[in-house]
Amino acid sequence: MSIITLTTDFGTRDWFVGSMKGAILSVNPHAVPVDITHDIPPGDIRAGAFALAASYRSFPRNTVHLAVVDPGVGSPRAALVVRTSDYYFVGPDNGVLSIALAKEKIVEIWQVENEIYFRQPISNTFHGRDVFAPVAAHLTLRILMDSLGQQVTDYVQLDWPKPQVDGALIRGEIVYIDHFGNAISNIESPEKSTGTVRVPDKVECTLKQFYQEVPSGQPLAIAGSAGFLEIAVNAGHAAQAYGLKLGDVVEVM
Amino acid sequence: MSIITLTTDFGTRDWFVGSMKGAILSVNPHAVPVDITHDIPPGDIRAGAFALAASYRSFPRNTVHLAVVDPGVGSPRAALVVRTSDYYFVGPDNGVLSIALAKEKIVEIWQVENEIYFRQPISNTFHGRDVFAPVAAHLTLRILMDSLGQQVTDYVQLDWPKPQVDGALIRGEIVYIDHFGNAISNIESPEKSTGTVRVPDKVECTLKQFYQEVPSGQPLAIAGSAGFLEIAVNAGHAAQAYGLKLGDVVEVM
Amino acid sequence: MSIITLTTDFGTRDWFVGSMKGAILSVNPHAVPVDITHDIPPGDIRAGAFALAASYRSFPRNTVHLAVVDPGVGSPRAALVVRTSDYYFVGPDNGVLSIALAKEKIVEIWQVENEIYFRQPISNTFHGRDVFAPVAAHLTLRILMDSLGQQVTDYVQLDWPKPQVDGALIRGEIVYIDHFGNAISNIESPEKSTGTVRVPDKVECTLKQFYQEVPSGQPLAIAGSAGFLEIAVNAGHAAQAYGLKLGDVVEVM
Repeated sequence: MSIITLTTDFGTRDWFVGSMKGAILSVNPHAVPVDITHDIPPGDIRAGAFALAASYRSFPRNTVHLAVVDPGVGSPRAALVVRTSDYYFVGPDNGVLSIALAKEKIVEIWQVENEIYFRQPISNTFHGRDVFAPVAAHLTLRILMDSLGQQVTDYVQLDWPKPQVDGALIRGEIVYIDHFGNAISNIESPEKSTGTVRVPDKVECTLKQFYQEVPSGQPLAIAGSAGFLEIAVNAGHAAQAYGLKLGDVVEVM
Repeated sequence: MSIITLTTDFGTRDWFVGSMKGAILSVNPHAVPVDITHDIPPGDIRAGAFALAASYRSFPRNTVHLAVVDPGVGSPRAALVVRTSDYYFVGPDNGVLSIALAKEKIVEIWQVENEIYFRQPISNTFHGRDVFAPVAAHLTLRILMDSLGQQVTDYVQLDWPKPQVDGALIRGEIVYIDHFGNAISNIESPEKSTGTVRVPDKVECTLKQFYQEVPSGQPLAIAGSAGFLEIAVNAGHAAQAYGLKLGDVVEVM
Repeated sequence: MSIITLTTDFGTRDWFVGSMKGAILSVNPHAVPVDITHDIPPGDIRAGAFALAASYRSFPRNTVHLAVVDPGVGSPRAALVVRTSDYYFVGPDNGVLSIALAKEKIVEIWQVENEIYFRQPISNTFHGRDVFAPVAAHLTLRILMDSLGQQVTDYVQLDWPKPQVDGALIRGEIVYIDHFGNAISNIESPEKSTGTVRVPDKVECTLKQFYQEVPSGQPLAIAGSAGFLEIAVNAGHAAQAYGLKLGDVVEVM
């Protein structure tokens, strides 16, 4: 198994992603790079962490998940390899792996220091190509984990908001807005599809099972594919329609 | 042969396409997903159908073509597998396959119902990942077609405009505007490159064999690579230059 | 080895890139197409040439590098295959290969004329699919080079600006602005990270080793990953912050 997923803020306008894939294939020509997304807003560690957390479980066991949103590139922040019971994760130790790792059973954590696994010379501005991509590719070659560097027991965790339960009310917030304009909350999807969902002063709607349960253009709440409650508009763009923004309070009654 | 093409409206900003590829590779790690495009305007079945029809023949025999533009996701619209003499097609039964299928010799049509071919649990908002991608991947494993579900004889067809012939005049319309601003009509490219092409009140130009036959910035009509007559501007953006829009009448004299 | 990189101005909105990959896989189903970028501005040969030059060395030996920015498609400009000591290059003879080739040791140059290597019928508007992609794919099948067409000794070279040295001052210009807003100059990165860099009337800053050496929002100059001096803003967008544009003079003192 030699699948390597890529989640970055490098964009697709330039050659950065291609260069990372070249670095991967230079180490293991049989590796299979798969793009998650490269359109994470520049430096937005939280958005990168969420995209990784929302997608990594779609991949087969032993996939190597590489996430590079790295505003601290060149500074002494560590490069991490984390092995969980099902996957490998590679990225800077700045929290970008942490939302996914919070859901995983961690087996071992390494700070990568062995330059034999890097591309030479190492630029100070593009560790995606020179550090993280070749390290990920080496993982698909079944290197010994203890050759990577120094084993550690902790990693940087994002301060990710947890929903609050207040009697029959759950209060969370919008943590991601997707391409369709769906506003994804941090509230896990309830088992039953009943209830009222409200973003105070903006929109109130009811939980439905699929979009077409409300007329076209009308709002609804729905159990989203990432496992969280989302606010959507049937055949529309909820965020634009109601001015929904990251951090807006979401209440479920 | 295990190529699977992907045509969707999922965009590349989020993790949706990556998740679909993960679902494919979870079923068949040797499958080869190939993007056609993921930038179909959200819910625009016609644009998705046209992109598929314009590209599927570039692929080798037995390629599985997966198209997911699916505003009805979660509702009871069927999931289709269509085998033609050369290819497999997978997608929702909403017309997105129909322009391509109109050009193919259909061998069998199935409504997929066998949940053994789905990813579990099945979300109500992302059948691209949970239904269509795994079904497409199973097709590359040479499953028995009659294990898919129920064989049917028909599928939803888009109401696609046909050009009208009126003496020496052919009257069609603009059905797609591409990234370069070329306006693609529904009029099949004539064998001879002579004649006048007109979008009433907007632009009139003559049929040419290649762009440089007119000066830079000037309009021309040309046999496009999708098999249809296109209106272009040499080194320019025809749609912007002349305000060309989907549905505009195109006349060939 | 059957990696084929793709650098084009075809965009990702339509089906053009997918069609090219289909054409490649129709010739060699084991070829591995890898996107560099498809967002080169339409017809911008210089930007395409720079993206190729900045990325091709990240790939393993014998990679086939395909670059199609081809405003002259359909006209009699030649289709080139260039073999260097490490790579193959394929593209129109309009300069798009020339910045990369200037850094390579050229072994042989061919104008491709043998239509057995093309896809039939050949459209006049999409040689990316019908000429360049299948030729690139044939190269991965180890065809005899002298079956391609006519060997030549020269190719079109872009008039690429060279920096001028004037005593202790090096004067170059901005040749590319990337997705992060970093302004890449044509001045090769100096070995030592000291000195002052100035874009007259716009910004003056000092050479640093990594972004965080200056406060967030402040400008710096840095040895970029493409081998050239770049002007950046720590956690910011230098081009927007200082109105930097292609062609702006860059002075290093």
